[in-house]
Amino acid sequence: MSTKTVAIVGASGYSGEELVRLLLSHPQAELKVVTSRQYAGRILAQVFPRFAHHPRARTLRFSEPEADLLAKQAEVIFLALPHGVAAKFAAPLFQLGCRIIDLSADFRLKSPAIYQEFYAHEHPAPDLLARAVYGLPEVYRAEIQRASLVASPGCYPTSILLPAVPLLKAGLVKATGIIANSLSGVSGAGRKAERDYLFVECYESVRPYGVPKHRHLSEIEQELSLAAGEQVTIQFTPHLIPVNRGILTTLYLAPAKHFADSTAMSELAENISACYQSAYGNEPFVRLIEDEALPDTKNVIGTNVIEIAWRLDPRTGRLLVMSAEDNLLKGASGQAVQCLNIMCGFPETAGLL
Amino acid sequence: MSTKTVAIVGASGYSGEELVRLLLSHPQAELKVVTSRQYAGRILAQVFPRFAHHPRARTLRFSEPEADLLAKQAEVIFLALPHGVAAKFAAPLFQLGCRIIDLSADFRLKSPAIYQEFYAHEHPAPDLLARAVYGLPEVYRAEIQRASLVASPGCYPTSILLPAVPLLKAGLVKATGIIANSLSGVSGAGRKAERDYLFVECYESVRPYGVPKHRHLSEIEQELSLAAGEQVTIQFTPHLIPVNRGILTTLYLAPAKHFADSTAMSELAENISACYQSAYGNEPFVRLIEDEALPDTKNVIGTNVIEIAWRLDPRTGRLLVMSAEDNLLKGASGQAVQCLNIMCGFPETAGLL
Amino acid sequence: MSTKTVAIVGASGYSGEELVRLLLSHPQAELKVVTSRQYAGRILAQVFPRFAHHPRARTLRFSEPEADLLAKQAEVIFLALPHGVAAKFAAPLFQLGCRIIDLSADFRLKSPAIYQEFYAHEHPAPDLLARAVYGLPEVYRAEIQRASLVASPGCYPTSILLPAVPLLKAGLVKATGIIANSLSGVSGAGRKAERDYLFVECYESVRPYGVPKHRHLSEIEQELSLAAGEQVTIQFTPHLIPVNRGILTTLYLAPAKHFADSTAMSELAENISACYQSAYGNEPFVRLIEDEALPDTKNVIGTNVIEIAWRLDPRTGRLLVMSAEDNLLKGASGQAVQCLNIMCGFPETAGLL
Amino acid sequence: MSTKTVAIVGASGYSGEELVRLLLSHPQAELKVVTSRQYAGRILAQVFPRFAHHPRARTLRFSEPEADLLAKQAEVIFLALPHGVAAKFAAPLFQLGCRIIDLSADFRLKSPAIYQEFYAHEHPAPDLLARAVYGLPEVYRAEIQRASLVASPGCYPTSILLPAVPLLKAGLVKATGIIANSLSGVSGAGRKAERDYLFVECYESVRPYGVPKHRHLSEIEQELSLAAGEQVTIQFTPHLIPVNRGILTTLYLAPAKHFADSTAMSELAENISACYQSAYGNEPFVRLIEDEALPDTKNVIGTNVIEIAWRLDPRTGRLLVMSAEDNLLKGASGQAVQCLNIMCGFPETAGLL
Repeated sequence: MSTKTVAIVGASGYSGEELVRLLLSHPQAELKVVTSRQYAGRILAQVFPRFAHHPRARTLRFSEPEADLLAKQAEVIFLALPHGVAAKFAAPLFQLGCRIIDLSADFRLKSPAIYQEFYAHEHPAPDLLARAVYGLPEVYRAEIQRASLVASPGCYPTSILLPAVPLLKAGLVKATGIIANSLSGVSGAGRKAERDYLFVECYESVRPYGVPKHRHLSEIEQELSLAAGEQVTIQFTPHLIPVNRGILTTLYLAPAKHFADSTAMSELAENISACYQSAYGNEPFVRLIEDEALPDTKNVIGTNVIEIAWRLDPRTGRLLVMSAEDNLLKGASGQAVQCLNIMCGFPETAGLL
Repeated sequence: MSTKTVAIVGASGYSGEELVRLLLSHPQAELKVVTSRQYAGRILAQVFPRFAHHPRARTLRFSEPEADLLAKQAEVIFLALPHGVAAKFAAPLFQLGCRIIDLSADFRLKSPAIYQEFYAHEHPAPDLLARAVYGLPEVYRAEIQRASLVASPGCYPTSILLPAVPLLKAGLVKATGIIANSLSGVSGAGRKAERDYLFVECYESVRPYGVPKHRHLSEIEQELSLAAGEQVTIQFTPHLIPVNRGILTTLYLAPAKHFADSTAMSELAENISACYQSAYGNEPFVRLIEDEALPDTKNVIGTNVIEIAWRLDPRTGRLLVMSAEDNLLKGASGQAVQCLNIMCGFPETAGLL
Repeated sequence: MSTKTVAIVGASGYSGEELVRLLLSHPQAELKVVTSRQYAGRILAQVFPRFAHHPRARTLRFSEPEADLLAKQAEVIFLALPHGVAAKFAAPLFQLGCRIIDLSADFRLKSPAIYQEFYAHEHPAPDLLARAVYGLPEVYRAEIQRASLVASPGCYPTSILLPAVPLLKAGLVKATGIIANSLSGVSGAGRKAERDYLFVECYESVRPYGVPKHRHLSEIEQELSLAAGEQVTIQFTPHLIPVNRGILTTLYLAPAKHFADSTAMSELAENISACYQSAYGNEPFVRLIEDEALPDTKNVIGTNVIEIAWRLDPRTGRLLVMSAEDNLLKGASGQAVQCLNIMCGFPETAGLL
Repeated sequence: MSTKTVAIVGASGYSGEELVRLLLSHPQAELKVVTSRQYAGRILAQVFPRFAHHPRARTLRFSEPEADLLAKQAEVIFLALPHGVAAKFAAPLFQLGCRIIDLSADFRLKSPAIYQEFYAHEHPAPDLLARAVYGLPEVYRAEIQRASLVASPGCYPTSILLPAVPLLKAGLVKATGIIANSLSGVSGAGRKAERDYLFVECYESVRPYGVPKHRHLSEIEQELSLAAGEQVTIQFTPHLIPVNRGILTTLYLAPAKHFADSTAMSELAENISACYQSAYGNEPFVRLIEDEALPDTKNVIGTNVIEIAWRLDPRTGRLLVMSAEDNLLKGASGQAVQCLNIMCGFPETAGLL
């Protein structure tokens, strides 16, 4: 089995920590470098005792992030940094010939203007945008395979795009009037010592936030528009739920054709089922639920799987699609490792089963 | 201060238990009888140790429910029984002249046919339906005052109707295309020893259920239709969230008039604000949020308050309205006590502050 | 009903917030002042939306804390401030003739030297120590009645002292070898924006801390020594549990007499039962569990009650005593209001049922 | 790499489910059979959707448990059955030459009389008791290697024995007066649809139970007595905590020698440290914490690791030892797989990193 050397830049947040976990157990990736300004000099196992039983975690030390050194030590580099910061690191690493998988939002958008609209600062490396591939393997597998710079999708976008893209591509649903109602665990907010995310402030709290213009809308609408072949504007409402992990998204869609009677409804149902089978029937990390069950975050937590189920409602004429994923895995670090596997020619499920 | 004697029939479920708590502390209600087949003969404080510091809970015993005895001992009777069972108890009590507040679904619908469609059995006392008043004080206060039979609304319906009814009455939003996305704590499922509601099965689980035709749709649509003056059909998606209490509802509405520019948007915003102020500005248990905050279940748990906030989204042309309530209080027992206060001429907030 | 004017200095932490809740509903206390440097000028209901349905919360504004003004506006003043800070406020208020109930540790210890040993700074007002009464009503009711300065006990100390003091006073258990193993909800850590108390860091975490010399040992041992009539040194291990509220303490005690056979065991059991009945049989906020049940935090959360149960273990010869309380109520603000009631001649349960 | 065929009898409870998870990913075990009376005929992935991304889970069906068939299909058989039932299955499988790893309590005790005392029924296969090895690898590795019948230890016993056994063997602590105070997540109660384990009944509940004579005492005291070379009787108090997983145990021990001054204390500390290093310094699944940190269940959840830390308390002369483990892994299924690895000559960490 061939192996590749990998590095994680910014390994102290939740998605960085999850990357560490996955890469320590990965059969073909060799974790050579983890960087963190805060923890530089400390042994990985000291900072994250949960990894101490991995021999590698007992010897590997956090280092300061330096492009030259990183490029010497690792063939593939994961960036788990805040937006704005990630792009500044990516530019020199890209020059030095590293392959990069960036978990921030910095390379997800094709337009620097939209980046500035949603992230409130100029893009730090606009020239690289055209080089980046949106790292959603079920949609862009071939591009990821060849990519030098992969922009790993956001957690909410993954939970919305995977259910919606095939339907839009097939013209089965209208591109207008789409609503995405999403529920996320608190790890989605990152490891910030802010009062709003204290245990006591969250434990009995269920609340919407970021309404009505959350940053993730930019990449969601970009990708939905590409799928639909027309400009798509959606309604997106995130909510914070007192669990550590998991995103549950409920999508409200309008079928392209009305289904006035039960015959039309059956036909439409067959088309939707066929569309999903065609898109995901062979995907290792998409579970299409086809019985009476519905997605449940507890089925996907700790895995790289997204669950998808759908219902036609004859009372309202709408199509409901529901998805569940682990926001730190299929919504972040798991998907990034899936991209690594594709880029390196490893089995796509390596380190993810 | 005048007082009234009250009884609770079926006091062993979550809403029954919450009624006990409220009535033990109520300054003008005297809790004379609590019934439970399961606990008959046992002292209230033995079954519910959390009430043991109330002197009354240390002497009051659960009894078997018997209409004649109940009618002798209590002027107002709360029914906290399963649907189907409640109506069978209500009929003789009504004959005996008791005033009844029923927390089940049995008297919420005006049509026995719709009852049968949604509850899958014939209505046990269809003659009484015309005598019942829907116990939503902010909408039917005058009718509740005179009522002998109050049908206390469901938890989800309360969280949807209070935000939606004034807008529909004022013609500010369309009666079509309404979507209600609701999140509920596990106490909403009742005290049933079923595997799906075990701690371990729920703790990491966020999941939709009852899609697409939940029973509560029947009363929601009845009341929305009355408010709109036309038949309303809505999309309603309940989700189960791992907390004990609380409902968070997000409503997606279409304003009656498009707001093409910021002037039209400001005007619409003023109309919505004025509509809510006029409906709820003086309501003791509706909190209109008018600053940048959003509803949060932690602000309402343990209280009879519903929080409401709204946002116009110029990108999609929609109006979002969000509400938060305690499903066992404003969504059940608190609202029932509010009705008691109105029926008996007590201050409306008695026992609820 | 006579009333008293009251003030809360430092009303923005968890125990301050809980005091606000209790005093807003108190039938005989009139909440005149709430202070907070952070929130000065803001309306109470803005800062704590959960109180917005109390009319008083919609008009009362946080103010800067100033001794002269406080003394003019309030007869009784609650201090909900950090240790060290509280004593500096207490001194001038005491001079001005206010009655003070301090929730910090500043006046709990009789010895300034022990204060310095455990709190790592000099006592700011050692002259006042002799004037302070330890505010445990079940032990010092008469002294509290006359007190001008009440030191409200800590949450862990209350959970340990109430079960242990009567047994030590009666000589039923040895004063040596006592172990207290305590579990606390996260609100005990206060409203501090620190990473250790983030939701995600706590949700799956059960952990001991502060081992082996927690600050609360100082007041625990002072009071146990007074009860035993000799110097008592105990083992105390606090643990953090992922719930908002509640303390569960398990005490390991050695009976003064061995119980070699079942006759001796029965006799000892009768003595223990009689001891507790004599101490707490008429206490409104102590629930002695005498059937097969054991204390459970869910029975006391939201109440001012402490539950106590005990077991003799013939295998080991030990006596186990277990207690459960709400750390913010009987462990802090509820007990402080109980003291207020005693000081002012109100019914002891006023505002606490 | 050589492989072995394995079966799980009774795979529908929590420890059975966790065994399934581990064995699906195990590099050298081939999961051939899963049995469940309740689910016979159903595909594994239908019953446990969380495993659906494992190809094997999409083809393997639950079957009825039959000894002959099991013996033909699998070389090693895991029993995840209730006590009493397990022994009845073990007997014929043992006759048929299978190697058995039993997760129940049936083969943990050497004495059928003590089994009957603690489990309230006669032992179903007393002849096999002498053939069974107690499956604690860190203590009985050599015996496990040769064993045909391994009795996998209980979750509480593992959390107590691993910290205590080396100290007792080395004579560093007294064999008398030991106290173990343990906190367990709710999965320890098993997948039983009982009201006590409903989400709402547990979410705000912290409570002791099984006091003072829990069943696990029998195996704890058997193993401690073997380590000490004398009969040991301990105090053991389990508590239920509202988390899914994890056990945190705090042990109170008396050092064999008093440590009157700091020199004696240093010497004792060195001896304890050396004792643990000698016992566990090379163990892959024991993490000795030697800095200022303390065990925390969040560090071990999802792993087969037990964390151990200790403190000498000069105030009381006691030694405190604290441990944290995942009750379903090092406390059950992970340890069982560790035994499998030892029995089959696989690397001991295979499938467990």
